[in-house]
Order: sequence, then C-alpha cells, then structure tokens
Amino acid sequence: MAISMYQASVPLFVKMLGNLSAILKKAAAYAEAKKIEPRVLLDARLAPDMLSLTRQVQIASDTAKGCGARLAAVDVPKFEDNESSFDDLQARIAKTIEFLNGLKAQQIDGSEEREVTIPTRDQPLKFQGLPYLQYFVLPNFYFHVTTAYAILRHNGLDVGKMDYLGAR
Amino acid sequence: MAISMYQASVPLFVKMLGNLSAILKKAAAYAEAKKIEPRVLLDARLAPDMLSLTRQVQIASDTAKGCGARLAAVDVPKFEDNESSFDDLQARIAKTIEFLNGLKAQQIDGSEEREVTIPTRDQPLKFQGLPYLQYFVLPNFYFHVTTAYAILRHNGLDVGKMDYLGAR
Repeated sequence: MAISMYQASVPLFVKMLGNLSAILKKAAAYAEAKKIEPRVLLDARLAPDMLSLTRQVQIASDTAKGCGARLAAVDVPKFEDNESSFDDLQARIAKTIEFLNGLKAQQIDGSEEREVTIPTRDQPLKFQGLPYLQYFVLPNFYFHVTTAYAILRHNGLDVGKMDYLGAR
Repeated sequence: MAISMYQASVPLFVKMLGNLSAILKKAAAYAEAKKIEPRVLLDARLAPDMLSLTRQVQIASDTAKGCGARLAAVDVPKFEDNESSFDDLQARIAKTIEFLNGLKAQQIDGSEEREVTIPTRDQPLKFQGLPYLQYFVLPNFYFHVTTAYAILRHNGLDVGKMDYLGAR
C-alpha cells in the first residue's frame, strides 16, 4: 500500500480551495456588514512588497491547476487574472475546482518521474513529477491559501483555523 | 511506483524547518542591525487574536514531530515551549530536525491506516494515518511556517519566496 500521485495532489487542492471559497464568502459578507469597500480587502497585503489578496487567490488557483495539468500531461488552462470582485474570485475558484475534478486518477497516477517544465521570467524550471509536487507545489499552494487567510485575519475578519482546515 | 508515507512526510518537514531556521537567522541579524529588541519580533502577530512568531515556530515543530512520532508509533517527544530568544527557537528547530532524522523510513512506511489520536482540549481527534498526514498535518505545518514568514515580512524583514521554498 502507498499513496498515489493523484491522491497526494488533486483532492488536497479541491478541499483547500473549497475552504478558501468559504472564507472569501465570509469576507464578502463582512465587507458588506461593515460597509468596507470590497476593494480595500481585495487589494490588502501584509507588506508593501507582498502580493494582494486577489493575487494570492489567483496564484493558489494557478498552482493547483498547473500541478493537476502538468502531472496529467494536459495543457494548463489559462485564466485571465482579471478578477476584480469577490464574485469574480469565487468564479475563479469554481472553475479551478471544476478543472481539477475533471482530471482522472489514471491520468495522474504514475507521474512520479514525469518531466515537468514551469515557465518563469528567467530560465524555465525543470522537475520530475514527485519533487515538483512535494517541494514546489505543496509549499507554494499552502503558502498562498494561508497568506490569503492571514491578510483577511489581519484586516479583522472573524475566521479561525477550522475555517482554514475545513470540515473533516 | 508510488509515494511512501515516509517520503510524503519526514523529508518535507526537515526541508521546511531548515528554511524556517535560515529565515529566523536573518530575522535575528535584522533585529541586531536595526537595534530592534528581539522580543518585538518574537512576540509579533498579524492580529491580536493570532499567535505570536514564537508560537508559530513552536507549533510548526509540534506538528512535524507529532506526525513523525505518531506515524512511526513512537512517543511524541515533549518540548517545554519555553523559548524566549532567537537562539532558543534555533535550538528548538534543531532538536525537532534531529528527532525527525532519527526516524527510519521502515517505521513510517505502511502507516496509511494506522490509528492516530491527537489530544485536544476537548475530545481527542482520531484519524487514520493517511488522512491525518494529508488533511491535518500538511495544511497545519505549512500554515505555521507561512505565518511565521508572514509575521516577519510584515515587520520589515527582507526575505522572499525563495527563502521560504529553500534551495532545490
């Protein structure tokens, strides 16, 4: 018995993206209740040279869909990064989850040594599937979900660790 | 081919704890250079009801050693949570890594269905090994490492994503 590549990737992303969606729903309701202009939260960041809430959500989405697609050896869906409201972010998360749910375990299983190339501004990064998942995707994915949560907590949203972890 | 429980746990923790140690070294040097009282950073938090930097590091350590021990079915090492300086946190991380490095793959491999019990203030949480690792440990571990990083970034430390991800 052992863990399959599918088991170690797609269901984790789907779970956490669902939790992120629920946190963002609470954030939208909080903005409305407190008469906070939604952009204040969407543009909020923890340091002037850190990324905004909107970008954290977009990159969490990118990390998840990029991983699913690359491990399955299908094209990475391109999204426009033009979200400008909480509803837009919800739609972004929903289409990310929809894409992930369309991937079948047999497309991803066995991808431990599949060559993965990630375009960057500089040299593309090359990985094998397993170290890509474990040492690039997972820390990045959780980083952006956690930072989105932290930006909202820092701005007064009443959520807790159980919102981040989600229901069992 | 597939991922083993050891491969999916201990080496990830060791890697990220090493990265966290390097970030905390930069934080200590930053405090010294800017004549910031180290306690200001050690006690810093992103919201009044979030945990301090010190607690984030302690819980990252707890999550990692707890997972390693529980999957290996050995006693979880108890640490006193009495760290009050950057040096203390470095020692805490070092002894966490030392414990993790002492665990052998064959103690942990095959623990996918091992029963794991986590004491809490309320009812103990019960898991099987694999969902414990994937839906409790990994999101929690990365949460606390990311939040430690975010607290320091918010307080002006000049680190970036590559410090968080570490060298390949």
